[in-house]
Amino acid sequence: MAAFIVDRRDLDFVLYEQFKLEELTTWPRYAEMSRETFDMVLGEAVRFATEVLGPASGVADRAGVKIVDGEVVTAEVFKDIYRQYAEGGWIAAPHDPEFGGMGLPNALAIVVTELFIGACASFMFFPGLTAGAGHLIEAFGSDALKERFVARMYSGEWSGTMCLTEPQAGTSVGDLTTTATPIEGTDRFSIAGNKIFISAGDHDLTDNIIHLVLARVPGDTPGTKGISLFAVPKHRVNADGSRGEWNDVTLTALEHKMGIHASPTAALAFGENGRCEGFLVGERQQGLSYMFQMMNEARLHTGSQGVGIANAAYQLALAYAKERVQSTKATDRSDDVRRNLMLAKAYSEGIRALLVQAAVHADRARFHPDPDARSMSQGLLDLLTPVCKAYSTDTGFEVTELAMQIHGGYGYIGEYGVEQLMRDVKIASIYEGTNGVQALDLLGRKLRMKGGALFMAWFQEANAILERGAKTEGLGDIVDAVTKAKDTLGKTAFGFAEKGDPEVALLGATPFLEMFGQVQVGLLLLDQALIAEGQLRAIVAEKGVKDQAGVKKLVHDHEDARFYDAKIKTARFFANAVLPHVRATAAEIAAKDRSALDVIF
Amino acid sequence: MAAFIVDRRDLDFVLYEQFKLEELTTWPRYAEMSRETFDMVLGEAVRFATEVLGPASGVADRAGVKIVDGEVVTAEVFKDIYRQYAEGGWIAAPHDPEFGGMGLPNALAIVVTELFIGACASFMFFPGLTAGAGHLIEAFGSDALKERFVARMYSGEWSGTMCLTEPQAGTSVGDLTTTATPIEGTDRFSIAGNKIFISAGDHDLTDNIIHLVLARVPGDTPGTKGISLFAVPKHRVNADGSRGEWNDVTLTALEHKMGIHASPTAALAFGENGRCEGFLVGERQQGLSYMFQMMNEARLHTGSQGVGIANAAYQLALAYAKERVQSTKATDRSDDVRRNLMLAKAYSEGIRALLVQAAVHADRARFHPDPDARSMSQGLLDLLTPVCKAYSTDTGFEVTELAMQIHGGYGYIGEYGVEQLMRDVKIASIYEGTNGVQALDLLGRKLRMKGGALFMAWFQEANAILERGAKTEGLGDIVDAVTKAKDTLGKTAFGFAEKGDPEVALLGATPFLEMFGQVQVGLLLLDQALIAEGQLRAIVAEKGVKDQAGVKKLVHDHEDARFYDAKIKTARFFANAVLPHVRATAAEIAAKDRSALDVIF
Repeated sequence: MAAFIVDRRDLDFVLYEQFKLEELTTWPRYAEMSRETFDMVLGEAVRFATEVLGPASGVADRAGVKIVDGEVVTAEVFKDIYRQYAEGGWIAAPHDPEFGGMGLPNALAIVVTELFIGACASFMFFPGLTAGAGHLIEAFGSDALKERFVARMYSGEWSGTMCLTEPQAGTSVGDLTTTATPIEGTDRFSIAGNKIFISAGDHDLTDNIIHLVLARVPGDTPGTKGISLFAVPKHRVNADGSRGEWNDVTLTALEHKMGIHASPTAALAFGENGRCEGFLVGERQQGLSYMFQMMNEARLHTGSQGVGIANAAYQLALAYAKERVQSTKATDRSDDVRRNLMLAKAYSEGIRALLVQAAVHADRARFHPDPDARSMSQGLLDLLTPVCKAYSTDTGFEVTELAMQIHGGYGYIGEYGVEQLMRDVKIASIYEGTNGVQALDLLGRKLRMKGGALFMAWFQEANAILERGAKTEGLGDIVDAVTKAKDTLGKTAFGFAEKGDPEVALLGATPFLEMFGQVQVGLLLLDQALIAEGQLRAIVAEKGVKDQAGVKKLVHDHEDARFYDAKIKTARFFANAVLPHVRATAAEIAAKDRSALDVIF
Repeated sequence: MAAFIVDRRDLDFVLYEQFKLEELTTWPRYAEMSRETFDMVLGEAVRFATEVLGPASGVADRAGVKIVDGEVVTAEVFKDIYRQYAEGGWIAAPHDPEFGGMGLPNALAIVVTELFIGACASFMFFPGLTAGAGHLIEAFGSDALKERFVARMYSGEWSGTMCLTEPQAGTSVGDLTTTATPIEGTDRFSIAGNKIFISAGDHDLTDNIIHLVLARVPGDTPGTKGISLFAVPKHRVNADGSRGEWNDVTLTALEHKMGIHASPTAALAFGENGRCEGFLVGERQQGLSYMFQMMNEARLHTGSQGVGIANAAYQLALAYAKERVQSTKATDRSDDVRRNLMLAKAYSEGIRALLVQAAVHADRARFHPDPDARSMSQGLLDLLTPVCKAYSTDTGFEVTELAMQIHGGYGYIGEYGVEQLMRDVKIASIYEGTNGVQALDLLGRKLRMKGGALFMAWFQEANAILERGAKTEGLGDIVDAVTKAKDTLGKTAFGFAEKGDPEVALLGATPFLEMFGQVQVGLLLLDQALIAEGQLRAIVAEKGVKDQAGVKKLVHDHEDARFYDAKIKTARFFANAVLPHVRATAAEIAAKDRSALDVIF
């Protein structure tokens, strides 16, 4: 498989030049960190992604997962990688140091996640679920529970999963039938039920697996309100904290999936022999609310699956095109390849900025010294989360499509890597709430939250970028295009607030999320172009270049000048090729066509 | 795997009501055929697709292909199916009866192909390549060659392939290095060289395989002009026509592909031991022109891969949604599901009509009694072929994406069938000339052919539909939307004719093809809505229905009324949801943005 390539220059640009990561070190929370800390982490992440994870991806995909003696056996190559990953401290990178977390800012952690998922998506389910499950216990569990599980999970000794879906219930989690019956005279519950679609649900990478299971205590409220959360280890834990006997958790099936072949998606039976014990996490009947509180985080991570794989695919395609089309003027087709590359670049870099922006808001929402800034960022994070999840994953998929077309026939062949990226990214549009569900969340909930205040705050942020744009020479065409697109989005959003058929409005949810993503990426690419224009101007001045021919030569010869020039061109291309579609989508929504509702299929 | 479902009602509507297949029986060529003949063929094709091919698809995908003792072993289930397929006379269904063809109109044959590919795409490579290779020999080979090979290929005893690509040459066929050296005192040539990407390149379904190989006779013109075509059997043919000794054709590799796992994509070495003999097909140095003459046909077939898989995916999603979302009002998400279904329906039925229309032009071009009609249809076929190939395959892929989202998590799981359809359709955007190459063909060649006369003829056809629309009550909004889109397309096409930078113009090739496809499908769906409106009005009159409530009840209760009503709604939905994007794409092209050309990646 072709190598995993990282554009470190773009990462540095987004983190430091666009989102000013160093400012976080002025807050008490990150006072002990510095640019050097961040650079060291980033450098090590790039190394781990390119040297360890990347080379394992194709190998693990072909090895897949298999069941041996009732347990899952994973790709041989994963065992040592999980050890290295844990030793590197990556499992709980953004979590508190108390139980072994690195306490990294989310803005940095999301880039690390992006790199690791881009390098080997299948692998990341094991530590990703472990971190998520560990964090749930850390956030809501009793001290005894934290003591028992969290440090061992963050250290990589044990791992974790989330067990939500049941065979009969589908998306309706309130219908679950798994029961948790108190065991008299103990703090434990007897767990009985079946769960499906459990990522990393069984494997041989760790000594024990701590399943977080949604279940109902008999007699508790029916529906979603009566659900509680339990920590259910695969093997019981002895009094001294070591692994004890098997806890009656049985692997019943593995799914055969389109992609992420090296990641087991398991069905588990809890308590088939009546001997499965679990521990209540937090309060009774609060299980779903705990899950929901973790969900925003999970949705950003899913978004970064789109970002990581998009960028991996774009870099593969770029390397292929450079090698293959030695002269860009050699054939007519090179024009088409160039357009595909440019679209892939704009999307990949745009959604990367989108995710980092959301992660910065997550950091500000928790740790900014100013409470107003915290509240403002929390609102923007809430608003942007469904956009990050859905737009990044659908766009990531589209980038793999572009990358495949650039490869021609080779794109369809396993060894070139693109087809695996396409298969691996597709799940991201589906899980953690399908992208349709994200769209309904954005339109039905987020847009209305606090009387529309979130959206108004977003509008102000957008206008701030556009005002900077208005003061910058030479980018007026991009500013105009983004302004138009933003105004169209605003008009569409206010249109939803008008009285009308709510069902017809919901038909517009997916189109609205798509146009929101396009406008937001347009804004972020414009923001990048504005920064780049200033930097390029500075280089031109520094080098004493006087005319257009000189600038052209500078862009050709000077690495940074070339990078900044490409940023400006990328924003312009996006404004011309993608943003006109915002208006088209708005027209669809404005038409309020009932056909899809009224038709009898 | 979920069952393969055919909407026979829609097939009948497209063939008989929209494209009036029965009119063909008034031409001498089809004088002996009738509606009954067509219905019989169609009925048998539907049966074969649903009962034989469909159930084999998932099984064969999991079995894949393997190499045993240097030869390809295919899925066990394919052997009997190939026999049945051949006995059914399907291999040469549209070809002349002289060597065993059925002589079916292309319009019918393309629907048969669509059904078979939708039911089991992997299988169709074996008979598809055989028919293509057989037809090449039939069209250009000597009588001796036809005698030796064609009937045996059409009957299913032997099969065929096309060997074009070489490892070092990529898309540049003129660089080929395979040689064909005359063997003194015979009519045979000694073949030496390596070919890759050979669909059905080796397998165990037939007793012999006749490879059609592009090669150069030493001393002939360099580049594309000096290439000749040779028939090179895997096993030699004895004087009595029976299979003889091995002809030194060696399987060197099988590709591991994203999809069509049950179809072997082989690399072959010809004459590794200097004992490979081939026969010249047609004239020396005419090989590439022969291939090109077959290419239009192959491109329509590739388009119908998009159509077949789109319709299969739509039907799967529809069946799943009906079963799953028992009440369409049950959840918010049902709105999003309904929009996805409607988009999938509009695309699937629209590209089906597009392919049938092109096939009707192919029939008219060859067999219409009026030479002017023949010439007009040949021009429209030439113009529409790249649109059929590229738009249908990209759209087909998009429909599998919609179908997967409708399935939620189950869409990603093998047993539900959608993920296989997605993997299987993807290759269709790549082979027979990538969709980027199709776009360059449309813009760079077809639009200019005969001084733009092809496009003007298309414009007239479009206007004829719109004029009928103007006379029909109640569809004015759809007519307006399609008219606007068509005018935008026209303006864009004429814009390309203006003087300007040809490189920038070529950047617009892919967007232009996409908007052409959207407008053409918009026209065809409008045409369907016009027919449906008339039919619905007739039913309303016949039933004596007087008011809107009565019509609503009729649509609910009466199968045909429901079908026609859905046709109208489908056209309206497409006009509102898709056609606004035509203008957005036109804006991209009109911007003449050089960014993608000037950027230094």
